[in-house]
Amino acid sequence: MNYPYSFEELTECFQLLPGIGGKGAQRLTYHILDMDINQVERFANALIQFKNNIKYCKKCGHICEDEYCDICKDSSRDQSTICIVESPKDVFAMEKLKEYHGLYHVLHGTMSIMDGKTIDDLNIQSLFDRLNEDIKEVIIATNPTREGETTALFIAKLLAKQNISATRIANGLPIGSNLDYADELTLLKSLEGRKKI
Amino acid sequence: MNYPYSFEELTECFQLLPGIGGKGAQRLTYHILDMDINQVERFANALIQFKNNIKYCKKCGHICEDEYCDICKDSSRDQSTICIVESPKDVFAMEKLKEYHGLYHVLHGTMSIMDGKTIDDLNIQSLFDRLNEDIKEVIIATNPTREGETTALFIAKLLAKQNISATRIANGLPIGSNLDYADELTLLKSLEGRKKI
Repeated sequence: MNYPYSFEELTECFQLLPGIGGKGAQRLTYHILDMDINQVERFANALIQFKNNIKYCKKCGHICEDEYCDICKDSSRDQSTICIVESPKDVFAMEKLKEYHGLYHVLHGTMSIMDGKTIDDLNIQSLFDRLNEDIKEVIIATNPTREGETTALFIAKLLAKQNISATRIANGLPIGSNLDYADELTLLKSLEGRKKI
Repeated sequence: MNYPYSFEELTECFQLLPGIGGKGAQRLTYHILDMDINQVERFANALIQFKNNIKYCKKCGHICEDEYCDICKDSSRDQSTICIVESPKDVFAMEKLKEYHGLYHVLHGTMSIMDGKTIDDLNIQSLFDRLNEDIKEVIIATNPTREGETTALFIAKLLAKQNISATRIANGLPIGSNLDYADELTLLKSLEGRKKI
């Protein structure tokens, strides 16, 4: 026997989400069955509202509900430093630190030969529009993956042409980790980046 | 810095689902951000339509979109056997077998001292309304858990009063499993239920 149409349809929708397979999607659908109608309406509304309300900041590309994000609107932040990251997630990760008080620029991806993404597919033009004599440092904080490193090097070269100093976040062993379990490249980077104590 | 309101709201909604924690909910929200608006609208619609369209069959309590479910409507099925299960999930599990051709009755739960659920909280009255001289066997297929067993025994006693023969699905080692890893109770049940070969 088949599942009712609206059951199948909701299960299929859940399967569009990452990490949710057939069994997991069914489990979620059964859970929705037992949920209060108000809760389900809230959920459906949240999906639509989220999709309609979230915009990208016109200046840095971070997510926000206005024209500019809270960080760009905050004039108390250090306006002379820009930290380049791959995605809005990374902005939140950096902000959790409470150590960085400059601005951000969100690339929305990396250059990738595999996916055929070049520098022009990234949110990069608006970065160069922002660069002026007030900018003292650009920190390139793309992920330490092959694509992230390629993108970092490429952007660093473009910045060098404009005589803007770029730095790259450090690689090495994560705190609490173990030399024994570290991959060779991480260990090598950790050795190369050694400091006098 | 805080997440935008509609971001937080959607993340909270995802966290209402079973097995989805804070990090997982955020991951899903970021995924929705990259999804096509049509897909998101489809998802929101599926939630509402599912909640509005799914009903419980007036006869057996299984999920359906009409007054009666496909199984109860199918006159070619064996009308003399009723299989009692805890939830609609179990009906689909049994149907996958393609070995059982009788009817079902969905209890929607079990008796449970912990949750203060008695026999009257289950879909049980409608079962007794269905019992007539045509019913030859009632198979009690509640789960082999403490609650499922209690409920099975209780229903078997009620059926005995009406002189209706009730059977209980067998317990034992699942196929492909290992004696070594089986819990003692399962092994005991497996021994008790031994058959001549």
